[in-house]
Amino acid sequence: MDLNMFKYARTMSPNPQDTRQLILDTALRLFEERGYAATTMRAIAAEAGLAPSNAYYWFANKDELVQEFYNRIQDDHLVRVADVLAGAGSLAERLSAVEHGYLDVIGGYHGFGGAFVSTALGSSAASPFSDESARPREKSIAIYREVVAGARPAVPEKIRGALPELLWLCHLAITLFWVTDSSRDQERTRRLVDAAVPLVAPLIRVAKLPWAGSVTDQLERALAVVMERTSA
Amino acid sequence: MDLNMFKYARTMSPNPQDTRQLILDTALRLFEERGYAATTMRAIAAEAGLAPSNAYYWFANKDELVQEFYNRIQDDHLVRVADVLAGAGSLAERLSAVEHGYLDVIGGYHGFGGAFVSTALGSSAASPFSDESARPREKSIAIYREVVAGARPAVPEKIRGALPELLWLCHLAITLFWVTDSSRDQERTRRLVDAAVPLVAPLIRVAKLPWAGSVTDQLERALAVVMERTSA
Repeated sequence: MDLNMFKYARTMSPNPQDTRQLILDTALRLFEERGYAATTMRAIAAEAGLAPSNAYYWFANKDELVQEFYNRIQDDHLVRVADVLAGAGSLAERLSAVEHGYLDVIGGYHGFGGAFVSTALGSSAASPFSDESARPREKSIAIYREVVAGARPAVPEKIRGALPELLWLCHLAITLFWVTDSSRDQERTRRLVDAAVPLVAPLIRVAKLPWAGSVTDQLERALAVVMERTSA
Repeated sequence: MDLNMFKYARTMSPNPQDTRQLILDTALRLFEERGYAATTMRAIAAEAGLAPSNAYYWFANKDELVQEFYNRIQDDHLVRVADVLAGAGSLAERLSAVEHGYLDVIGGYHGFGGAFVSTALGSSAASPFSDESARPREKSIAIYREVVAGARPAVPEKIRGALPELLWLCHLAITLFWVTDSSRDQERTRRLVDAAVPLVAPLIRVAKLPWAGSVTDQLERALAVVMERTSA
């Protein structure tokens, strides 16, 4: 990393993606060391050996860095759970592996997780529901679509439409719980995942009942309100 | 208010509760006008016409003001929905009235709601799950206990234990949604309440099924993890 920074300080960023990456890596390190609020875009540029104008070219502000961070987490999450998604397993097994895989991925960022969530709540752009967050959000929801689509036994048709978004919202709630989790290595969040995941089994069982159609309709109406674009 | 402030500036706070109230009122006004982060305890004291030492006697820091604010909101909420809780109604009717009553109570604070939630996420003391928040939390959960206990038709025994905390967690999720709701008068949160509340009916229906016992056991295990004391 230090060698790379030296190289970038002296050349004109040969590979644009590398410069983005360098800025993000530097930003995450400074957020960890100095705190999110205390880290300015100028400080990130200086630490990365870039002119401020160059850093601003890639990220207009810290909100955009947060977006890129979300994006990277989703990519890392997908890589981490690709085998699980490609394999066979019950809905509960797949969901458990996907959530624990996510906690593995974000584990190193716990020090400033709170700052990011605060940012997401304080700025409409950084909210996971914003237009600006559409890319990482879609990546994350796609994982839950895969969780549902590949589950064996198959998830009943009636709940298949609503379930991925519902699971994604539960996943957001777990992320929030993790942010405030002060237990060692956030083991409490691990226990919450283990205790909550088995609740999908009765959900599936209910989805097979004759009156489940009206419930899933109502659920879809509630999800539609949550998933409306913030800008609408 | 201005007259009171003048009086307090000149006397030695005849009624302790009035001084607390004055500090909180002043703080909320300044949070609204200047933002939460930019408002110092010293500025609150000065604006309230108190010596800093006097203000610090009542609130050691802004976290404690946030606690007092939570407390007041719960008190106001209870006053607002007392008639609903005393009356008869279905679980869905009671829950709907209680949630809308809550949105009425917090409506005026939307301007700095995000700052408070950020504080709650950034500071373990201000989290709604902390020991320090026990009083307002218990007040709020007590409202949901009343919602459940007074519902007619009666809520099935099996789910009666877990339901109040489950509803309180949903209430926290709705609060979070409200914080990031940029729609006019947060009408989107109102629509979410209207779309989500009917989902309690199938929950009750499921609780009457012969296999519901193992589900509510699992639900109680998950709730137990969530509700563990942060300090534990």
